[in-house]
Amino acid sequence: MNNPTPEFAKQMANAIRLLAVDAVEKAKSGHPGAPMGMADIAEVLWNRHLSHNPTNPHWANRDRFVLSNGHGSMLIYALLHLTGYNLPMEELKNFRQLHSKTAGHPEFGITPGVETTTGPLGQGITNAVGMALAEKLLGQEFNKPDLPIVGHFTYVFLGDGCMMEGISHEACALAGTLRLSKLVAFYDDNGISIDGHVEGWFTDDTPQRFEAYGWNVIAGVDGHNPAAIDAAVKAAKAQAHNLDGKPTLICCKTVIGMGSPNKAGTHDVHGAALGAAEVQATRDALGWTSAPFEIPADIAAAWNAVARGVAAESAWNRQFAAYQAQYPLQAAEFVRRMSGDLLPVYTEKLPEVLAGIASNATSFATRKSSQNALDVMAPLVPEFFGGSADLTGSNLTNFKGCVRAGRDTWGNHLSYGVREFGMAAIMNGIALHGGYIPYGGTFLTFSDYSRNAIRMAALMKIRVIHVFTHDSIGLGEDGPTHQSVEHIPSLRIIPGLDVWRPADGLETAVAWACAVERRDGPSALCLSRQNLPRLADISQADKIRKGGYILSDMEGAQAAILSTGSELEIAMKAQAALAADGIATRVVSMPCTNVFDRQSEAYQEMVLPLSMPTVAIEAAHPDFWRKYVGRTGVVIGMPTFGESAPAPKLYAHFGITAERVVAAVEVLAHRAAHRRAEPLPDTVVPSSN
Amino acid sequence: MNNPTPEFAKQMANAIRLLAVDAVEKAKSGHPGAPMGMADIAEVLWNRHLSHNPTNPHWANRDRFVLSNGHGSMLIYALLHLTGYNLPMEELKNFRQLHSKTAGHPEFGITPGVETTTGPLGQGITNAVGMALAEKLLGQEFNKPDLPIVGHFTYVFLGDGCMMEGISHEACALAGTLRLSKLVAFYDDNGISIDGHVEGWFTDDTPQRFEAYGWNVIAGVDGHNPAAIDAAVKAAKAQAHNLDGKPTLICCKTVIGMGSPNKAGTHDVHGAALGAAEVQATRDALGWTSAPFEIPADIAAAWNAVARGVAAESAWNRQFAAYQAQYPLQAAEFVRRMSGDLLPVYTEKLPEVLAGIASNATSFATRKSSQNALDVMAPLVPEFFGGSADLTGSNLTNFKGCVRAGRDTWGNHLSYGVREFGMAAIMNGIALHGGYIPYGGTFLTFSDYSRNAIRMAALMKIRVIHVFTHDSIGLGEDGPTHQSVEHIPSLRIIPGLDVWRPADGLETAVAWACAVERRDGPSALCLSRQNLPRLADISQADKIRKGGYILSDMEGAQAAILSTGSELEIAMKAQAALAADGIATRVVSMPCTNVFDRQSEAYQEMVLPLSMPTVAIEAAHPDFWRKYVGRTGVVIGMPTFGESAPAPKLYAHFGITAERVVAAVEVLAHRAAHRRAEPLPDTVVPSSN
Repeated sequence: MNNPTPEFAKQMANAIRLLAVDAVEKAKSGHPGAPMGMADIAEVLWNRHLSHNPTNPHWANRDRFVLSNGHGSMLIYALLHLTGYNLPMEELKNFRQLHSKTAGHPEFGITPGVETTTGPLGQGITNAVGMALAEKLLGQEFNKPDLPIVGHFTYVFLGDGCMMEGISHEACALAGTLRLSKLVAFYDDNGISIDGHVEGWFTDDTPQRFEAYGWNVIAGVDGHNPAAIDAAVKAAKAQAHNLDGKPTLICCKTVIGMGSPNKAGTHDVHGAALGAAEVQATRDALGWTSAPFEIPADIAAAWNAVARGVAAESAWNRQFAAYQAQYPLQAAEFVRRMSGDLLPVYTEKLPEVLAGIASNATSFATRKSSQNALDVMAPLVPEFFGGSADLTGSNLTNFKGCVRAGRDTWGNHLSYGVREFGMAAIMNGIALHGGYIPYGGTFLTFSDYSRNAIRMAALMKIRVIHVFTHDSIGLGEDGPTHQSVEHIPSLRIIPGLDVWRPADGLETAVAWACAVERRDGPSALCLSRQNLPRLADISQADKIRKGGYILSDMEGAQAAILSTGSELEIAMKAQAALAADGIATRVVSMPCTNVFDRQSEAYQEMVLPLSMPTVAIEAAHPDFWRKYVGRTGVVIGMPTFGESAPAPKLYAHFGITAERVVAAVEVLAHRAAHRRAEPLPDTVVPSSN
Repeated sequence: MNNPTPEFAKQMANAIRLLAVDAVEKAKSGHPGAPMGMADIAEVLWNRHLSHNPTNPHWANRDRFVLSNGHGSMLIYALLHLTGYNLPMEELKNFRQLHSKTAGHPEFGITPGVETTTGPLGQGITNAVGMALAEKLLGQEFNKPDLPIVGHFTYVFLGDGCMMEGISHEACALAGTLRLSKLVAFYDDNGISIDGHVEGWFTDDTPQRFEAYGWNVIAGVDGHNPAAIDAAVKAAKAQAHNLDGKPTLICCKTVIGMGSPNKAGTHDVHGAALGAAEVQATRDALGWTSAPFEIPADIAAAWNAVARGVAAESAWNRQFAAYQAQYPLQAAEFVRRMSGDLLPVYTEKLPEVLAGIASNATSFATRKSSQNALDVMAPLVPEFFGGSADLTGSNLTNFKGCVRAGRDTWGNHLSYGVREFGMAAIMNGIALHGGYIPYGGTFLTFSDYSRNAIRMAALMKIRVIHVFTHDSIGLGEDGPTHQSVEHIPSLRIIPGLDVWRPADGLETAVAWACAVERRDGPSALCLSRQNLPRLADISQADKIRKGGYILSDMEGAQAAILSTGSELEIAMKAQAALAADGIATRVVSMPCTNVFDRQSEAYQEMVLPLSMPTVAIEAAHPDFWRKYVGRTGVVIGMPTFGESAPAPKLYAHFGITAERVVAAVEVLAHRAAHRRAEPLPDTVVPSSN
């Protein structure tokens, strides 16, 4: 029902309120305040404006909806259930229970219709910026006059918490600059956060702030007045197609927990069940006579959006059929791009691309090898959408023929500005939207800034690629503020993230290939500032794909030297020096421990036998390597911060040297020779990793 | 010279320009653009306004100066050298060389007069907010009518990069709310960032944005017109003492690289040496005839601020003597507070405080144990300045009798708002200023947001305490977005950070004591949401201080069970179950691996003998524990993300159980019994960790 009477609209909103109240009450856990406060806004948006098809949550041109204040998850679960998604009432009754589809915070991939996982504040609005950007770019790339196959809005709800988070500044400033006019955000201005009334810590003039970003601000809307909300949405949509259209912020004054007679307007209603008495009081106050988890038939019918949704998608399908008839190649490409499949030519041509790279004997920094790989891979991967957080010339994320994305013009490389966290969460939004494979660069150390967005990509299992250059003390003079020490090992333990630290041109290109081919999670490439020699040859390309492999073996190897990235060169030098001393060793290159750990136990044992003493060398925090070298192996790394000096001096100063590897191997070899008995290899160990 | 002629002022500024140009040229590395662009502003501020004493960089009431755009480090090095700090010209010639005092980015503790380490953008301005807050709080606490012993300004330079970073939003919004009127920021509005002219990615109306924060904005100042800059600073200072005084932003239009005839105004001058030809062209253009690293005597004399500085501090010393005479106790307390020493009564009373806590047999969540510890420790540590990023009631950072800090009123607990990164970097600023020991809370998972500020505290070796609650799947229903998995191990490898994960009330109180007593670095306390039983007794207090200790030993222990925090209870249950099966074990509690790793090798070997098979259990990513259990031990942990469900269901689902420990110990014991020979303990291993 697109035009309910005010009284009926209120009842429709109350259906959301009671579902939230009852689900939180049953779970004895959750956040009723936001769903109750935003129920009227939700009714207007979802019932009167949102273009979506509950029977096909994957319809390419659906409007996107993001609940940035994800703790209010019962709001979206109620909406999805009521409008007809495959989210039966049983799921709402199982709110926050193991293996339900109604997790504490909305989770992408778990609940149909949830476009992104939210909860960590500020990231939902930023994902939405990414979605709106993807929509705009796809439209510029694919739309034809009279056949605008891409054309949808991205709506987002956000609260005071999102507004306070720094990432909201990064994302919204960029959205204003890029004039993402089909982004419409509803600010739940209820004046309450967990510590109480916000005026003690949050006094921004938010409309003025967003005007400063170049947004269309509709201030002072009564968030409990459906007509006012409806007018605001109409105004936002009306200006969206203007040449100078802007993203819109609709500032809605609301009462948190609206409907709860004794707790509305207080932070008590934010994050706890109301309690039986107040639940009943709320029912009474709202005149809601249905039992928990029961929705009156007329209200349920009014909410159901299946018929409208099917009609909307059908209309689009007809348009797309016309597009297909006129532009068959582009239509096929659009379908492919939205599916996430790679071009067949990618698979065909990749071997020769890798062979070409492997044949180049020049020493390159791996950041440059990364650019070299992009240069030859980008024509095979037209869905690349690259960028950098204001370090394009340092990260070398731009490639031959890439087009700088502008406010009004399509491009496939964006200068995100100095906004690492914003970039990462925008990339998540782009990946979630579909149509592009986003990658973005910054210095590895500033992965700290974006860390939680990297984590969210891993949790959501989406294809996002981080290009982290200047990955160690090897960057030299910029000093310890910029030199990564703990970053590589700390990224390796984000579940689901593949962290690559390639050693040369071929390893870098293979890392790119694996990252591109990986459909179920993000990858990070850690790359050197300094030049590194070629070490691998094309025959090793498939082994590189295993994450770890024997780069150089010697008969009767007494020890393994395990290394990555810029230190692999040192490992090879140490092997040569030891060979001259009559000690045979094996050099293992481990560009991606995460991938190596997914290989069979037999392969892992073949590469790094438990019985073989091992020395690891990496210019990063050493503790990580104990999982491969044990307590009695040796790790040469950086347990401290770096210093400011030219890189070669730092390597010598911190002892990241072949001499140190040689000494360590000699000690291990000596020990092994004098041991009464070898420790027994024993791989039958129950282990959770 | 406080009032130079315009021509002479320009020459003074040119001294900065040439020092920057020549030092970068000699190092062949560095950033000349910002020092050249901001030289005129620096002349006005440092020569005409800054109250400081180059012969005593630790004078309590000096104005603080922060170079938030830290890559322009030669600007501050030039200023420190010219005004008379102990930074001889030799150091400037050694710019960016190993062990010089002129690192690539300014480093606190290395260079006299550098108030904070900067480089990671946005954090300097945020540290400055912390300094201004500390100044305001100290003034409210100590000043007397006519004896305002605390009263200084905090000045900060920042560029476009800082303005784009999200943390600038968090910090500046809070500074406006708190009316930190003695904070004066100079925005180097040069329209250039590394990717080029900023209009493609940064179009904020910055004056409007800061007005929205409640700042006093002085827009449109010509950053190369000393009279205009001087007038702006005077206006900023004049309003600072008004009841409704505000922080001031002076927006200075500048030309990056001003003075370089061919590179000024381009990003080429941002981060690279000019090259010999352009260096000469710059000399010619500026009419600078002195050789590199030579300053004409009249200019050097004008810059020297020693006499003025000594006079300024002497005047303050006289005032402080009067204060001392009238308020001897408060004067002594002020001196103590600024020194960072703890009260003698702290040391005296701590044992009975700990004994009292240890005597309480109630099960508490360690977040509650933390509050219990604060309740009894806070009277002994009046310099505590607590807070939370809008989770006070969840983090339990408030203590009995704490006073909420307000805009106009002193307090020792601040609601920072939903601003984790801002809070962390503000705490760094408070610690750097002196007078308070800052601590602040959020959920452990959101340490991701603040991670680089935690790192900066570790790099600066300053006493900041992070209270991270809800530290695992034990938080239950909020689900994987909020459940930490990788956070504890990833924090443990930040060099210099002590990460505590206490298991009960006593361990929590000892962790607090160690964090408070630690003068040379930050600490993080990882605390449970769920209740945990008492496990340690008061006789173990000193062993807890060692970071790891034998909690429960059995004669003939065949294996060790190593654990922390909420899983220690499970370890104890497993020990009991194994004992019933006739298998003797040892339970090792490891509340702080960082502190344990600093113990003697003998102590470490005594607690965790290399020859003793070990099972580690911690509801966090397992890889970290390999350093203690080796490749053949067992780690029971969380290699994946969590789920949304009640905590007990999650522990069972993910197998973080006593049964699993029992099974693992049985396998290890069986294996050891059937081994042909024991592996030889061998601790003579060269190792970098």
